[in-house]
Formats: sequence, structure tokens, C-alpha cells
Amino acid sequence: METPSSRLRARLDTARPAIAMSAHNALSAKLAAEAGFDAVWGSGFELSAAHAVPDASILSWDTHLAAMRAMVEVQDAPVVADIDTGSGNAVSVAYLVPRYAAAGVAAVVMEDKTFPKDSSLRVGGRQELVPVEEFQGKIEAARIDGGPLVIARTEALIAGLGQEEALKRGAAYAEAGADAVLIHSKQKTPDEIVAFCRAWPGRVPLVLVPTSYPQLSFADVAALNKVGLIICGNHAIRAAVGAMRDTFARILAEGGIAGVEDGIASVQDIFALQGDDAMREIEKRFLR
Amino acid sequence: METPSSRLRARLDTARPAIAMSAHNALSAKLAAEAGFDAVWGSGFELSAAHAVPDASILSWDTHLAAMRAMVEVQDAPVVADIDTGSGNAVSVAYLVPRYAAAGVAAVVMEDKTFPKDSSLRVGGRQELVPVEEFQGKIEAARIDGGPLVIARTEALIAGLGQEEALKRGAAYAEAGADAVLIHSKQKTPDEIVAFCRAWPGRVPLVLVPTSYPQLSFADVAALNKVGLIICGNHAIRAAVGAMRDTFARILAEGGIAGVEDGIASVQDIFALQGDDAMREIEKRFLR
Amino acid sequence: METPSSRLRARLDTARPAIAMSAHNALSAKLAAEAGFDAVWGSGFELSAAHAVPDASILSWDTHLAAMRAMVEVQDAPVVADIDTGSGNAVSVAYLVPRYAAAGVAAVVMEDKTFPKDSSLRVGGRQELVPVEEFQGKIEAARIDGGPLVIARTEALIAGLGQEEALKRGAAYAEAGADAVLIHSKQKTPDEIVAFCRAWPGRVPLVLVPTSYPQLSFADVAALNKVGLIICGNHAIRAAVGAMRDTFARILAEGGIAGVEDGIASVQDIFALQGDDAMREIEKRFLR
Amino acid sequence: METPSSRLRARLDTARPAIAMSAHNALSAKLAAEAGFDAVWGSGFELSAAHAVPDASILSWDTHLAAMRAMVEVQDAPVVADIDTGSGNAVSVAYLVPRYAAAGVAAVVMEDKTFPKDSSLRVGGRQELVPVEEFQGKIEAARIDGGPLVIARTEALIAGLGQEEALKRGAAYAEAGADAVLIHSKQKTPDEIVAFCRAWPGRVPLVLVPTSYPQLSFADVAALNKVGLIICGNHAIRAAVGAMRDTFARILAEGGIAGVEDGIASVQDIFALQGDDAMREIEKRFLR
Repeated sequence: METPSSRLRARLDTARPAIAMSAHNALSAKLAAEAGFDAVWGSGFELSAAHAVPDASILSWDTHLAAMRAMVEVQDAPVVADIDTGSGNAVSVAYLVPRYAAAGVAAVVMEDKTFPKDSSLRVGGRQELVPVEEFQGKIEAARIDGGPLVIARTEALIAGLGQEEALKRGAAYAEAGADAVLIHSKQKTPDEIVAFCRAWPGRVPLVLVPTSYPQLSFADVAALNKVGLIICGNHAIRAAVGAMRDTFARILAEGGIAGVEDGIASVQDIFALQGDDAMREIEKRFLR
Repeated sequence: METPSSRLRARLDTARPAIAMSAHNALSAKLAAEAGFDAVWGSGFELSAAHAVPDASILSWDTHLAAMRAMVEVQDAPVVADIDTGSGNAVSVAYLVPRYAAAGVAAVVMEDKTFPKDSSLRVGGRQELVPVEEFQGKIEAARIDGGPLVIARTEALIAGLGQEEALKRGAAYAEAGADAVLIHSKQKTPDEIVAFCRAWPGRVPLVLVPTSYPQLSFADVAALNKVGLIICGNHAIRAAVGAMRDTFARILAEGGIAGVEDGIASVQDIFALQGDDAMREIEKRFLR
Repeated sequence: METPSSRLRARLDTARPAIAMSAHNALSAKLAAEAGFDAVWGSGFELSAAHAVPDASILSWDTHLAAMRAMVEVQDAPVVADIDTGSGNAVSVAYLVPRYAAAGVAAVVMEDKTFPKDSSLRVGGRQELVPVEEFQGKIEAARIDGGPLVIARTEALIAGLGQEEALKRGAAYAEAGADAVLIHSKQKTPDEIVAFCRAWPGRVPLVLVPTSYPQLSFADVAALNKVGLIICGNHAIRAAVGAMRDTFARILAEGGIAGVEDGIASVQDIFALQGDDAMREIEKRFLR
Repeated sequence: METPSSRLRARLDTARPAIAMSAHNALSAKLAAEAGFDAVWGSGFELSAAHAVPDASILSWDTHLAAMRAMVEVQDAPVVADIDTGSGNAVSVAYLVPRYAAAGVAAVVMEDKTFPKDSSLRVGGRQELVPVEEFQGKIEAARIDGGPLVIARTEALIAGLGQEEALKRGAAYAEAGADAVLIHSKQKTPDEIVAFCRAWPGRVPLVLVPTSYPQLSFADVAALNKVGLIICGNHAIRAAVGAMRDTFARILAEGGIAGVEDGIASVQDIFALQGDDAMREIEKRFLR
């Protein structure tokens, strides 16, 4: 039987990596799917930003889970859920992941930092890792028959522990049953990541989030033939913020809303994204 | 004692109307406040759009209330909450509004349509109004000592009932204790609204949402000297959608994220909006 | 493939009706399943009571849906979800029921009253029914392939419209696709209900809630050979309230907690109900 | 200005300790207030039990916070919120407590265990404590002007660290600004607790939860003249469970609901607890 995870697994092709776009709500997920992205990244960073709080385990997993559910409800691309540290230890994970499975996500990404986490790209952030064995237990706790793929994210490079530790952790996580390994880096150039990919023995596909080294193109990544999924980590919220700022400033500066009208989506566009057609069909069939 | 509603009331100046910007999450509310808007419009249309569902009482009030709470938590501009029809009858309203009061909103806007509502600007939408007396009861049920201002929204023009009915309803709602009357129109020109404003006897200030007639500037409205609040009804989500669409398309077309980097907000911008400074202060003071 | 609804459908046997016990949280659902009930009644009345608010559409459907999810997560008996009026019109229903399906409920019970509803057994309650055709549309809107059974509840007897109207509505609802018809009565004797059952032509099984006429035994109902499901509508919360009152009063009267110790469940009992065994297994397997 | 916390503070009288009853929902809170308890204990153990999951940080704080809000809405006794470990570190606490303050709770109780916590009374439970200085930081992070009282709970005795460590921690927490210190013990006799109370220098009042040593009466505690608040920690859920089990078993055994009718609360009792009188007043005043 096809499941969200089996569909995503089939798309993890290291010769032609799947591309996921970040989302912070159902609408951005739908826009990502409409644009043609292979998957939606249910980003904790974006969701935290949408609430204007730091990406530091401030929001509860309930809020994140509800956002995932909403994303799954309105579009068909597989949703890759960012569950951060799994909200605690292996016991927490064992209770948490079935809820994400029930929400219909295709994969969960869990990172090897301590709870509460801090954002990986934050200057001076708190980046402490749990022992390898402990995280292996969390990976095992996350695995459910027919459930979401388990993508283990190692923050070894982010924490400054070096290539060797990163490779060791990646291998240990694959051994514990991770379906893919996300390797994160905040270097401004792709060198560190490219070196990691080349050294990766390839038992499971890798996942990259090239926020810090945007110059690495999707084709560059494909050429490495080690990466199954590239995640555009925060571009939905960053696009939205820039545009809202511009539009808000202009309306106040111009003393009215006429000037911005042509540069933003129309009200009819929004109706369409809300599924107006589907509602009209429902009205026609059922409303008496 | 100053309350959110007393602060907003002081700003409802018909000679210089307050300007509110719509928001669909805490972040857009914070951006609106930072841009200099006088208030945040906690829009049901935007929130529905953010969930990619129609603005037709599909989301529960719980979801809307949680969004209002989040907006109040992260910025200081008064939040004007769009409670649609009040989720039912006068009994519903009597149970609902105290929850919005506890969430710290400065005003609730309640409309005289039947539940479940349909979006005012929707072509062929279902626009049925409750009897005047029934809505007066709902206004009375919404009034709480020290609680949010009650802004009564009449959809008489939207429903095609004409100027006279709209004026009658506005007057009846003011008489029932509404602190302001929102008069909505979907005419493509401001004539209908301007006529209404001129004819309005002025017992309480009016509120306008000029989405359909953007050519009416804030200065034009001020010149009418009848309107205390102008609501930019959906510009946050429309700006966000346009920008996400552009960014998403460009990333896929270019095969990488390098090209969009300069045209969107930076990751550091997002950190700042998440209150990174405040968290650094918290870390310094309390983390040991 | 077996689904929650197919399992329940197989249990709707008019010769030996299934018995459902009401629940107001996951714990009472689990206790009902452990006691041997065939199904759990996800009661809106009990949930409202647990929140100490009237059963009059005061809670949002979100709150009810979350309770259903929690019930499904912790026990295996099929959950019959009380969705009241479907939270609005047929459009509301078409958006609502898929969410209940995703929550894993086996059936939804929807009643033919107007929104917001009032409690059926309330003296002087507001009992207004929607037109038959309108409710047929709502039933059709609730039907989903592989989704929950749709149990149509007619309040015709509650509203005082008489046997004929009740039978007409029941038949019309079955015709529209209802999988069963719940017929509710607040008569203090079973006569009205027994007469209805006898007159029911039997296209689909009936559902009874004998709160008002408790003297009608399960065997009496089975003998009618028309009823597939008997719902004990509010006995979980009523049992809980009585016991809490007694225990609370006694503790204050006795000036200590020693006296009540033997008459209430032990702390170890509660640990067991919380799934302590399952957590110990999780700890053993995954915690390092 | 009187606040929930100032009201509670005035009641923390070591010569006549306040008595709090545990609650797992708004209804049990209301029953506790009606019975005459001085405060409501917003228990994490009870709430977890109501969800049939272990009291081990499985539920999110969002779920707990929503329960506190519901308790505050329907009754007037001060609510003492059990925030466990504060859901993480001092940063977590700094973001969490303002939300509880907004919910109107009178106090928060925070314990010095690591996150995720385990239940104190669980045999073989995981009871690891954070360093004293770290917890002092969390206490400081929890303090808000006009906000909830901060009750620091030390699990030193539960963790088997002995009297001296418990006293040291209690003193350090008081020094950091805790308004009271909760000292917990799982000894089957009161000796350990009584010794602690006698040795306590008394800078701030103590709080006891005598679940394990029920023989210590409220008068015994008052005689120690060190304790401001006694918490009955889990008697609401234990009373409810026992009664539901009995009622459920009896209904199935008797084949009907007639037999239990007189031993449980009546439907009219439940209506009254739901605030039927208040709703009738609302209907009379506002419904047209």
C-alpha cells in the first residue's frame, strides 16, 4: 500500500535529489506544492518565526503538529516534519512520533542536540549534542512500521566537532535505522559539506540544507550522487517578511492602498488558494 | 487604568483616523506594528487564507483566538479581533467575548450575517443577515466592563439591501451599545461608502475596509470626518503570497537558492524579528 | 481492509445491540473499553460538562476533535463521535468530517437541530429543527469513502413534533445515506421510543440513548430487533461527579486524606491506567 | 490591586494552612471550589491521567495551559499550576510563565528535576536533579511583577539525596526569590517530612503533598507552623476512576442503566454544574 513515507522514499534519488521548500503554514505548503517542489519542509524555524519567537523549543510540539496536520490537509506533496530534538528523550520520541504518523507526515527529521534546542545558525547559539548511543535509542524509538521515514540530523559540524565526528555519528545513526542522514553546516562555503558528502560511504542518502552556502546549486549536489533530498530551509518566511515590510511601508508612505494593488496577489488569487472552487462544488452538491 | 480598549478608543479620531493593518500570525502583526500602523487587524480572512481554507466559518474560533493571543504576546499595537458572526447566537457571543477579553484584544468586530458566514467579497457568496433586534442582542451580549470595544459590522450594503437599511442598522447597533460601526462595501468605487459616511449622523465613529475601492486615500477618509478607523483588510497575506510565489518559482527555475538571496529578508532579519535580543538578555540573566 | 468504521458496522447487530459508554476524556474511554463496552461515545454533553460549560455549542469543534483523537490513541474500542449539528451547514460538515475521519473515529452522530444547538434534555431548551432536505444534504456531505459511519440523529420527538414526523425524518435520512438513525426521546417512560422502534421499517439500524427511560433494559431493546447500538449517554461524568463530591466533602470534614484512601482508586491503579507498563518497555528498549 | 497571586499569598498562613484539591479539568476545579477548598491544584499528574498517558512530560505545556485557562474561567478559587520542570531550561521558563500569568493562575509550582521529568511516586522512576545554581536561575526567570507566586519544588528527598541536601536546596530557592518551597517525600510515614519542617528555618512557607503519608492530618501540619499550603495531589482523578469503574461494571452486569441511577449524580446536577442558571440569564437578557 502506498503511504506518505513510501512515496517520499521513492523520491529520494541521489542522482536527482528531491527538493523541499520550507513552509510555516498550510498556505505556504500549498504554494510550494503548486510551484513544483517535491516535498514540503515543515520547518520549526519558520513556524517559530511566524509566531515571532526564537527557534529554541519555545513553541510546544502541539503547535507544530497542528501545523503539520493543516499542511497535509490542503495539498499533496509529502510533508517532512522538523521535530527538532523529539521534545526530550527516547521516551518522549516514542510517544511523539505516532502522533506525527497519524497526522500523515512522510518523514520526521530529528536532531542530535539536547533539549531545549537552539537554532543552528544562531551566532553564539547553544549547540550541545547528546551521546551517540542515546541518539541511536531515539532513532529506534522513532521507527514505526509504515510510519514516517526517520531522518537523523547531526549537528556535529554546527557544534564544531569536526568531520570525523560527523561521519561517525552519521554512520551510527544509519546503523540504528535512520532512513537518511541530514548533515548541517554553517560554513559560508560548501567545502565542508562537499567534503562530508564525498567521504560519506553511502549506506543511506544524505539530506542537505544549503542556507549558509547558497552557491551550491542543485546540480552541484546531484553531481555528488550522495544526497537524496535538498531542503530550502527558510525561504518562504524570508520572502514573506520582505514583501510585507515593503508593502506596509509603502501603504503608510503613500497614505493609501491604491499604490500596492498591482504588486501583490489579488483577492481573487487568495480565494483560489483557499479552495474556492472546491467550496463551490460542495455548495452545489450539498447545500439546500 | 489603561486597558487595550481604552488605548484604542483614544485613537479613534475621525479627524485623523487610526490605520490598522491585517495580520494572519504574530509575525505579520509585529511587522505591522514596526511599520507604524496604529492597530493590528486580526483578520479571519487572512487566517483562513493562511490555512488555505475558505473564509466561511471553516476554522474554529479556538484557532482564531489562539492567533490573537500570539499577536498580543509579541507586539504592543492594539489588536482588533475579527470574530465574524460571534460563532452563533447571542448566547455564543456571551461565552466567546470574555475569552477574547482575556486574550488582551482591544476590540472585537462582529458582523450581522448568519452563521456560518461567507466571505463578503466573494462573488455569489451567501450573504444573509440576521434581524436587527437579534443583532442588537448580540451586541449587548458582547459588552463587558473594561473589555474590548465592540465594533458592529453591518453587511447591509454587501447583501444588497441598500443605503437606507445600512443606515438603519448602523443606528440600531450604536443604540445597542456598539462603540463603532463598520460599514462594508464591495463597490469598485467609493461612492456608496462616501454617501454612507456623509449620511451617517455620527453618534459613534465609523470603520472602513477599503479593499474594493482602494482609490479612496486615508486623507480622503479623514476629510469625511466620520471614520475613526481604516482597516487594510488583507494586504499582509496578499504581499506574502506574491513574494513566496516569485521566490519559489525562481528557485526552481534557477536550480538553486543563490539568486533569490538578496531579494528576500536575511536570516539575521528573521532572528531579530524572533526577538533574539530579548532571548540573549534572558540567557545572560538566567542561564547558568 | 478493516477500518474503524467497518469494525463498528460489523457490530451493529439488531439481535444483540452494541453497547457504548460515554466518555469525556481518554481515561474514561479507556475505562469503558476495559469494562467491556463495545464502543465509546465521544459525548458532547460530557465534554461540555468536563469544561463546566453548557452543552450548547459553547466549546469549539476543535476541542471536541482533540478529545476524540486522544480517545483513539489510548484504547481500541471504536469511538462514536458526537458532532452535534456538524458546526453549521452542509459546507461546514464537508470540511469537518474529514478531520474526524483523520482522527480515526468509527462513526459520527449528527443531529437535525439548528446551530447553535441546545442540550436535548434541558427543560425549556431551544429545540429547532432544520428542514428535512437541508439535513439530507448534510448527511450526504458527511459521507466519505472508507470514512466514519454517518449516524443521523433526529430530534423530532425532543422537539415535540410527534411520531409521524420522526418516522418521516428517519426514513429521509436513511434514504440520504445515513448508516443508522438515532432516535432520541425525553419521555420518562419507554413507550414513545418502543412505539417508534416497532413502527420503524428497518432499512438501517436504530440507535437509542435511554437516559430518560432507564427502565428499558438492554435485553428489552434487543427484543425489539431494530436497534444496532445503545448509548449510555452520560454515565461516566455522572459517576465521576458524584464520587468527587463525596471525596472532597469527606476530606474537608475529616481534616485529612487518610479516611478516603481505601474508597478511591490507588495511585498504582492510576499509574497502570497511564500505561506504565508500556512506558517501562519503552524505557528498557530505547533509553540509554 | 488584588490579583490572583495576592489573594493566594494572603491565604498562605502557617498557623492555618490553605488546602488545595487537585483537578484534571474545569469541572473538578469547580467541584473543589464548591466543596470549600482554598485553592485548586492544576495537577500535571491528574491531567496526564485524564489523557491516559504517563506523567512524564508526554503532554505538551500547551495542553496543560489550556486546562488552567478553563479552570480559571469557571470558578473563583486560586489555581496553583503545576508546571513540572518549566518545560526545559531557564530560557524556556522565561517564555512559559508569562503565558501562565495571562491565563490567570495564582501560582506556578516548578520542580528541580531534569526535563523530561518522571512522576515522583513512580517506583524506579527517573529522578535526576539539576544543579542548584541552574534552578535558581529558573526561579529568577519565573518571577514577574504582579505575576503568579513562584513555588519551588525540591525533589531532593524523592531522589534520595537526604535531608541536608533538601534543606540546602530549599534555602537556596528561597534566596533566589521563591515565594514558597514545596518539599516532596514518598516515605510511607510522615517522619521525613516532619523532620524537614522542624528543621526549616522558615524564611518562606512550605508546601506539602501528603499523598504517601496520608495519616498526617491537616491539624498536624498546622501544628508544625511552617506550612502555608497543603495539596491533596490526586484525589479528584482517583475518586473519579473508582466510581466510573464501579458504574461501568454494574451497567454491564445488570444489562441496563436503571440500577446505577440513584448512586450517581443526576442529569440535573450536571446541568447545574454547567452553569445552566447563568445561561438562562443570558438567554433572557440577550436572545431575541
